[in-house]
Amino acid sequence: MPGSTIGQLFRLTSFGESHGAAIGGVVDGCPAGLELDLVSVQGELDRRRPGSTPLGTTRNEADRVEWLSGLYATPVPAFAGMTTRSDITLGTPIGFLIRNTDAKSSDYDALKDVYRPGHADRSWEQKFGLRDHRGGGRSSARTTAACVVGGAIARQLLAGAGVRVNAYVSRVGEVHVLRDPRELDLNATWASDVRCPDTEAAALMRRLIEQVRAEGDSIGGMVRCVVQGLPAGLGDPVFDKLDADLAKAMLSINASKGFQIGSGFAAAMMRGSAHNDGYWIGSAGEVDTRTNHSGGTLGGISTGGEIYFDVAFKPPATIAQAQHTVNTEGKEVVLEARGRHDPCVVPRAVPIVEAMACLVLADHWLRQRVARV
Amino acid sequence: MPGSTIGQLFRLTSFGESHGAAIGGVVDGCPAGLELDLVSVQGELDRRRPGSTPLGTTRNEADRVEWLSGLYATPVPAFAGMTTRSDITLGTPIGFLIRNTDAKSSDYDALKDVYRPGHADRSWEQKFGLRDHRGGGRSSARTTAACVVGGAIARQLLAGAGVRVNAYVSRVGEVHVLRDPRELDLNATWASDVRCPDTEAAALMRRLIEQVRAEGDSIGGMVRCVVQGLPAGLGDPVFDKLDADLAKAMLSINASKGFQIGSGFAAAMMRGSAHNDGYWIGSAGEVDTRTNHSGGTLGGISTGGEIYFDVAFKPPATIAQAQHTVNTEGKEVVLEARGRHDPCVVPRAVPIVEAMACLVLADHWLRQRVARV
Amino acid sequence: MPGSTIGQLFRLTSFGESHGAAIGGVVDGCPAGLELDLVSVQGELDRRRPGSTPLGTTRNEADRVEWLSGLYATPVPAFAGMTTRSDITLGTPIGFLIRNTDAKSSDYDALKDVYRPGHADRSWEQKFGLRDHRGGGRSSARTTAACVVGGAIARQLLAGAGVRVNAYVSRVGEVHVLRDPRELDLNATWASDVRCPDTEAAALMRRLIEQVRAEGDSIGGMVRCVVQGLPAGLGDPVFDKLDADLAKAMLSINASKGFQIGSGFAAAMMRGSAHNDGYWIGSAGEVDTRTNHSGGTLGGISTGGEIYFDVAFKPPATIAQAQHTVNTEGKEVVLEARGRHDPCVVPRAVPIVEAMACLVLADHWLRQRVARV
Amino acid sequence: MPGSTIGQLFRLTSFGESHGAAIGGVVDGCPAGLELDLVSVQGELDRRRPGSTPLGTTRNEADRVEWLSGLYATPVPAFAGMTTRSDITLGTPIGFLIRNTDAKSSDYDALKDVYRPGHADRSWEQKFGLRDHRGGGRSSARTTAACVVGGAIARQLLAGAGVRVNAYVSRVGEVHVLRDPRELDLNATWASDVRCPDTEAAALMRRLIEQVRAEGDSIGGMVRCVVQGLPAGLGDPVFDKLDADLAKAMLSINASKGFQIGSGFAAAMMRGSAHNDGYWIGSAGEVDTRTNHSGGTLGGISTGGEIYFDVAFKPPATIAQAQHTVNTEGKEVVLEARGRHDPCVVPRAVPIVEAMACLVLADHWLRQRVARV
Repeated sequence: MPGSTIGQLFRLTSFGESHGAAIGGVVDGCPAGLELDLVSVQGELDRRRPGSTPLGTTRNEADRVEWLSGLYATPVPAFAGMTTRSDITLGTPIGFLIRNTDAKSSDYDALKDVYRPGHADRSWEQKFGLRDHRGGGRSSARTTAACVVGGAIARQLLAGAGVRVNAYVSRVGEVHVLRDPRELDLNATWASDVRCPDTEAAALMRRLIEQVRAEGDSIGGMVRCVVQGLPAGLGDPVFDKLDADLAKAMLSINASKGFQIGSGFAAAMMRGSAHNDGYWIGSAGEVDTRTNHSGGTLGGISTGGEIYFDVAFKPPATIAQAQHTVNTEGKEVVLEARGRHDPCVVPRAVPIVEAMACLVLADHWLRQRVARV
Repeated sequence: MPGSTIGQLFRLTSFGESHGAAIGGVVDGCPAGLELDLVSVQGELDRRRPGSTPLGTTRNEADRVEWLSGLYATPVPAFAGMTTRSDITLGTPIGFLIRNTDAKSSDYDALKDVYRPGHADRSWEQKFGLRDHRGGGRSSARTTAACVVGGAIARQLLAGAGVRVNAYVSRVGEVHVLRDPRELDLNATWASDVRCPDTEAAALMRRLIEQVRAEGDSIGGMVRCVVQGLPAGLGDPVFDKLDADLAKAMLSINASKGFQIGSGFAAAMMRGSAHNDGYWIGSAGEVDTRTNHSGGTLGGISTGGEIYFDVAFKPPATIAQAQHTVNTEGKEVVLEARGRHDPCVVPRAVPIVEAMACLVLADHWLRQRVARV
Repeated sequence: MPGSTIGQLFRLTSFGESHGAAIGGVVDGCPAGLELDLVSVQGELDRRRPGSTPLGTTRNEADRVEWLSGLYATPVPAFAGMTTRSDITLGTPIGFLIRNTDAKSSDYDALKDVYRPGHADRSWEQKFGLRDHRGGGRSSARTTAACVVGGAIARQLLAGAGVRVNAYVSRVGEVHVLRDPRELDLNATWASDVRCPDTEAAALMRRLIEQVRAEGDSIGGMVRCVVQGLPAGLGDPVFDKLDADLAKAMLSINASKGFQIGSGFAAAMMRGSAHNDGYWIGSAGEVDTRTNHSGGTLGGISTGGEIYFDVAFKPPATIAQAQHTVNTEGKEVVLEARGRHDPCVVPRAVPIVEAMACLVLADHWLRQRVARV
Repeated sequence: MPGSTIGQLFRLTSFGESHGAAIGGVVDGCPAGLELDLVSVQGELDRRRPGSTPLGTTRNEADRVEWLSGLYATPVPAFAGMTTRSDITLGTPIGFLIRNTDAKSSDYDALKDVYRPGHADRSWEQKFGLRDHRGGGRSSARTTAACVVGGAIARQLLAGAGVRVNAYVSRVGEVHVLRDPRELDLNATWASDVRCPDTEAAALMRRLIEQVRAEGDSIGGMVRCVVQGLPAGLGDPVFDKLDADLAKAMLSINASKGFQIGSGFAAAMMRGSAHNDGYWIGSAGEVDTRTNHSGGTLGGISTGGEIYFDVAFKPPATIAQAQHTVNTEGKEVVLEARGRHDPCVVPRAVPIVEAMACLVLADHWLRQRVARV
């Protein structure tokens, strides 16, 4: 049944397989009158692209967004060096697509009759009774490109309300960021090829990824996401808690295995007297806390404080080492993988985590408009 | 906006505040013709009840489910000692309620003008512009009773397909289960007052909880949930992944701070060569794996193997120690809490984790019926 | 699958069969802070009640709404003769129920093995594989009581925006209102036992209904609904047009067979030059039309003008005459009906039409809050 | 908010304005393994096209469906004159688009500052605070092309279950089909340029449309739709009745003003003794009725008999006569319309009515799979 839509008021419906004609989506519910910077949307997509860092796969797709509907181009006076194209949202669904230009299905012919360990090949076949063996089909991380476009639109809606969403790689294997997150310059993330703003940690991560690649292996990691400027009151008390919707969004990203907000799993080892974030009156008369174990939500509703959460990613399933598996005829075989793949997905997961967060936050930001008479 | 409904095909809509007339719900989408054992549903609710373990709050509610609709009582011959009442689902919405019989709103009068640290008081007020200070209102864990009833119905639907869902306390503070989960007797959970089937760990947990209570403090913990017998193919490839929906359901439980499935956060530190679950042909000719790092889903779709996941819970916010906070007039005050509360919620969270899991699984089990022509 | 919920932002989930313990519902999405007059809600329900007019069935149910959640009673100073109870909506789901106190299931025992012509007995059985023969089960018009309660809440939300919704019987069999609707005093509807504000037509309708009853027969009719004060801009351009959602709501009322808005079926015989409502500038400088063939929507969006639509109802299927039918064993039999039933449903349909209209309008009124940046 | 999606299990999300880059849609929920004849889908679209009949507008769009995702082309041996391309649905969303190749926005420049009577110009502007004056934008009937594609897929799903859906023009202005519908050859509809299988009525309709065109006027009409072979049991008892969902789907078609099923508005004038469809045992032992006033549903659930319903359409708002209106500056002006338009939409509405019916029926056909244990 339908499972390709996320959001209630700000809603993305995505479509597309990795090796079909195109992937894309429809953003329905974006309010009318939003001035949308399409160059910036493309910029976000570029960050997700395979090949955007020297560490990723060598598959190279242009990944140009083609806008189909929902926008009204405003006549903008031309300046030398103009780098923006400003469009106005009509309030109607924004359809878009991204062509699959670099799909080499033949790369996957060898995989037609074998189940790859750690991949969705077998579960997919058991679900649908058939399998599109060309790449991961709809299980491919390529589908996240549509999320990035939808999230980039959501981000521009949120920006008008002063909301900022920044993610970064906080761990690759044994290497993790040791510095206090508040000391990090979140704007430095994109300058780092491993998408980590802590330069010492970044250097270690890069070295580890290169080593793992040399071994024909892959490695897992973590992404932290920080949300600043979010108003209080977002999220619903019971099922559609803000953190519950964030958890769903994060677990819907390929290769993610866990989500935690605020103190997260560490909370299981804490006392209430240490965990509760006491209230104080700040210097400007505002109510404030000195700790943020809640991670910015209480009872599933945003507090107005900083939101932060972590997402764990498993190591990519495709490796260059031989693996034990079975084929579709029920024989045990040894799989020698080929093709183009990342030894570590977390650098490329950063824009996706941000995008999914933006989708959830924009949805709840609109939802809050109908919370009171 | 509406946020009190979970599920697409098997759908629970819940209602009720802790200190109103009643809590309850409507299960819409339960197929017609299911023979429902209502005594068993009540039994599951009893496990969640405050006062069901000597370690919990002393608040004592009878918590009797009152069935309102959707069932058709079949004439059953009466036997001596008959302990079941069998009803048949009509295919129409099953409405039910549970009266709030032990609500002492006056306990909360002292909290009318103060924000309790770690509670939803302030975020709630910022959301709705008003606050029902009588208990937690709809933020109270009392609302989970409706989830337990809905989940118990879901469980009976799943049982017909051979699906078994068992949760247990795997950690309280520093104490955690060390034994291999496969060695645990999951049926022993309910005989343990801390809901832990590992008797040594259970004893340590009990002692820790009593010590924390004596200190006027509270403590966090973890619950593990294991699903056996689930068919392969459940879950959708992109947004409505089985793990994504489980994550949302778990993060919608009060006090939960994190979710992980399979290898979870540990995956962030693993190599692909170690993480991938290779395939073998089992003794009966079936395809099998020797490890289960995936936790029973690949690409968001169930593999047919065992599903297991963990949920982290923070320590309860209400403690008997003095806490620094502010009141509604913007003054800093010291809060001296009273009332009846748990020092540790995880034993009572066990039936709730199971119930939420059953709701998600029953939904996807029905969804799979329309996946193929 | 779930089919008991209507609305996106203002959402009613209903439950209950005619001969179970209770019917009721959950209104989720009603904004917080609405002062709700519960006496008025009960008053609307009284208008729908069997026995509310001398012309209806003699079944007499008290039909008292029992409020379960979502409301916060405000302390109101007591006055002599106080007739209102004012509650404030909390923003949480409003659960309510109405007991089935007068259900005589034994009346229906004779129908256990026979399919009643014009009733849902057979289609129901073919859907669910079983049948609750006690009354109509969930097919009974009794379920509309939950709609009336939900609609009464919606009406109070709309009233704050100046929206007024009035329906009346415009036809019973051959008798219909001949006077210009604009000359009718819509407040006179409830004083008329046939719910028709045109006294001459009302007298003829009453006589016709009594004659039909004497013949052991039943008769169809029509209800017109008029909406005044609705802001422009409500409704969505493509599928969720305001008129489309009204049509669905009206066709979901028991025994309804048709819906038309504005010129309706007469439009099929008109020329565009006559049908188009030209624009003029009114005396106060406002844009106005001199005709209203559109019925208050253009392109599915409200124009700000008066909305009017008609709903056609078939004659009740239960009559006191012998009817040819078959039984569950596949034999032809003659059905001699008994029990308590209306010869004409349209007077009792009036509050239901209003309620369903209010549900749709409140939903779209809230939806419009997120249409623009 | 989102309003561009229809259906629960078989779900179409549409996008696109008449004068943007493209219109299109995403069909999510089509089961895996359906062999889809894409040539036939294109054929259905061709029937809706402007210019498909000599009576319509002269706007001529190629309207080629471009398939983006969700399909897996099967290797088919090539034959001379092969006219089919068979694809298999993957179970994933089927994205498609249709380019707007013949959009002459300049045609509409004259309309930039004026509100066209009978059009959505003003209600649109009051909704979104802005207006895309190029054609009707998303209010244009061009958006129905996406419905036709979605409906054509739904039809092929239904065909496998033996369901046939046929619509035809039953009225144009004063001219209507007098022959008994059961005598009509429904396959003759497409051979008729006015889409009416009754050749005498068709000739009169054609003459009337040509006369109206010569007068610079437009005219309304009606479409009847007949569904054969639909299984019993489809539709839900309360809100999602089969007829309620059909009503919504039909009222969502541009220019429609009314819907009736079975006896429809005539039922308002009938006695129950005449309206009830009595049951008989047919020659093959099956339960049958001799009349079909119900129109194929009872209690909102399909009976297994023939479904028939009518949709009323208003005359197109764009006419070649001068009309009184106002401009955006609040001045009264006379509008002299130009551009390319139909004098009568009903011939082109026929494939749209069929498509919308197929969407609703396929949805409920899938829904019925989860009605029983």
